[in-house]
Amino acid sequence: MTVSSNKLDIAVLPGDGIGREVMAACLELLAAVEAKTAGAPLRMNTWQAGAQFYAESGEALPNATLDACRRADAVLFGAMGWPDIRHADGTEIIPQLDLRMALDLYAGVRPIRWFPGLPRILSDERVDDIDFVLVREQTEGLFHARGRGKVVGDDEAYDTMCITRNGTARVSDFAFRLAQRRQSRRGQARVTCVDKANVFTSMAFFRKIFDEVAATHPTIGADHAYVDAMALVMVKKPWTLDVMVTENMFGDILSDLAAGLVGGMGMAPSADVGDKHALFQPAHGTAPDIAGQGKANPCAMFLSAAMMLDWLAEKHSEPQLEVRARLIEASVQMALSSGAVPIELGGTAGCAAVTRETIAALPQAM
Amino acid sequence: MTVSSNKLDIAVLPGDGIGREVMAACLELLAAVEAKTAGAPLRMNTWQAGAQFYAESGEALPNATLDACRRADAVLFGAMGWPDIRHADGTEIIPQLDLRMALDLYAGVRPIRWFPGLPRILSDERVDDIDFVLVREQTEGLFHARGRGKVVGDDEAYDTMCITRNGTARVSDFAFRLAQRRQSRRGQARVTCVDKANVFTSMAFFRKIFDEVAATHPTIGADHAYVDAMALVMVKKPWTLDVMVTENMFGDILSDLAAGLVGGMGMAPSADVGDKHALFQPAHGTAPDIAGQGKANPCAMFLSAAMMLDWLAEKHSEPQLEVRARLIEASVQMALSSGAVPIELGGTAGCAAVTRETIAALPQAM
Ligand SMILES: CC(C)[C@H](C(=O)O)[C@@H](O)C(=O)O
Ligand SMILES: CC(C)[C@H](C(=O)O)[C@@H](O)C(=O)O
Repeated sequence: MTVSSNKLDIAVLPGDGIGREVMAACLELLAAVEAKTAGAPLRMNTWQAGAQFYAESGEALPNATLDACRRADAVLFGAMGWPDIRHADGTEIIPQLDLRMALDLYAGVRPIRWFPGLPRILSDERVDDIDFVLVREQTEGLFHARGRGKVVGDDEAYDTMCITRNGTARVSDFAFRLAQRRQSRRGQARVTCVDKANVFTSMAFFRKIFDEVAATHPTIGADHAYVDAMALVMVKKPWTLDVMVTENMFGDILSDLAAGLVGGMGMAPSADVGDKHALFQPAHGTAPDIAGQGKANPCAMFLSAAMMLDWLAEKHSEPQLEVRARLIEASVQMALSSGAVPIELGGTAGCAAVTRETIAALPQAM
Repeated sequence: MTVSSNKLDIAVLPGDGIGREVMAACLELLAAVEAKTAGAPLRMNTWQAGAQFYAESGEALPNATLDACRRADAVLFGAMGWPDIRHADGTEIIPQLDLRMALDLYAGVRPIRWFPGLPRILSDERVDDIDFVLVREQTEGLFHARGRGKVVGDDEAYDTMCITRNGTARVSDFAFRLAQRRQSRRGQARVTCVDKANVFTSMAFFRKIFDEVAATHPTIGADHAYVDAMALVMVKKPWTLDVMVTENMFGDILSDLAAGLVGGMGMAPSADVGDKHALFQPAHGTAPDIAGQGKANPCAMFLSAAMMLDWLAEKHSEPQLEVRARLIEASVQMALSSGAVPIELGGTAGCAAVTRETIAALPQAM
């Protein structure tokens, strides 16, 4: 067993609503996991950002927090935003979008996996085989228009989608490298370019650049699907999917759809990855309707922390962190299948119960 | 029983692939229905358009066909397009998009209903209650960019989404009038504006105009949802949905998702409606993989014809046509639940068998 002398700095941004609840649970789990495993310790530093902090301070994403994210080895993020707290111009507080741009987190990685033991959403038994990853481009596409849209004479409004060669190439390459790692584990892998190349110039361009990148990865399968057809495939046979790469807005829609297939946002982790930085967050929001009631499902947060450990393990050549990631996943699986079914999924286990069961499962999961 | 002296002209455009197969089946069904009911006869005239015709003639949507659609009381459309047949510039043959613009068919109406007896897609028993309608704006939005997109220096590509006051107001008003009719049948109704107003100027504008229109329909409920959240709701609790109105591209994605919930595109009818004209088509495409094999599911085509009859009934004050629409729906339901489960849904009934069973069910359905 190698014990690393590295200390890794994690910027912890709990944010608002259930973001705070699932983050507190996650820090507890991470501490318990660290106590049981070798490898670099994580130094967790909490920073302020979000709607609540904006209400108190007038800043949604203060410079100190942004700087801390830049300096940190990784960012662990809860959820941010609140319906009643808005910028002066009425727009919502969405620091997560600002962080994607500021840290150049171009690949939104949304793994979709079924945890056996959960109540089924789809009736087909093959849901047990659902194991795909949606890679969402996160720095351009339609979101390029954010803050740039125009209203002309209270009669027309415009937003422009922008697809660049570099933006498409790097996210496509990311998807192929991800598929490569899956291939070594599963024996085969395929990347599907999800676009609307039959209608839009920018989407035909996206597909063209994807094809160029695909040619540089001859051992990985590559194909295409229109985004509408993909929405249908996701509902009808999601077990056939592998790795997908798509435009920002399409990825936003498809990743919520996909999360629904495996139980909802409380089961869906995500990573926002760039070449230098990475941020890990559950796919859910702040859930004002259940915030403060202990009902949040912390699984997506736990699984996001596992993604962080995997990313750090690779980046810092710290295989022990990968051991921790597997341990978290196995414990979540054990907690769920031993009956700690989250409220969101029709069960009775609140945030505390799911956390307790997950931590209790650690010894057996090792 | 009133026997009308009106003759109604229907422009029939079978198109390509399974479009031709399901259209032939539909004409058979319509004739059988007409023989059993009173009311205006339909005069069906078939016109050429689509990829196959393009290959033969160099024209995808000839003027004669477009004129016939303009003159007709309604257009009945199969499906068009073929992977290997393309315009000289490599783009696909999509006359359906040209028709939406040429006939100003601004409201894409996609009803989603569960037919009891079909194999379940979702495991929840409440799927039996799925009965919602997606209204897709069809003349602007992101599709405004079609034919207008730009590539700059093989490095960047742009497509601009355009939302207009008039375009949003008329489609929103359409949705509220539709909800009104549902309300008189179901006792309550609600229109949900599906947008991404938290990020895009044009989408905030869409929501604003929707709200203005909602205020003119005070007896109908109105609310909002972000498109990503709506994708999740569709998977998790589609039985809670009623009428939705959304931007063109969002509607394209959500309507395929929604069709998947009730068995796939072969169960999903649609109407493209304007103030003067209307076109009715199954939501599926030409299905090159199964074309010519007799495997197509004609239900979506049948149900689209029923939507046409409803629209004509209202427009021409011909209640007998509504009787025919109900008859078609009831017969389809009987055929499906008496065991004619289409191949697409895991059954063994091809196009001919589903058609035969549907026609055979007419007498009992009356
Ligand atoms: C909060 C919202 C603006 C954000 C997005 O659209 O990207 C969210 O839906 C997400 O998927 O991370
Ligand atoms: C054929 C295609 C361009 C079309 C669209 O995107 O509108 C289709 O998907 C539809 O939904 O009618």
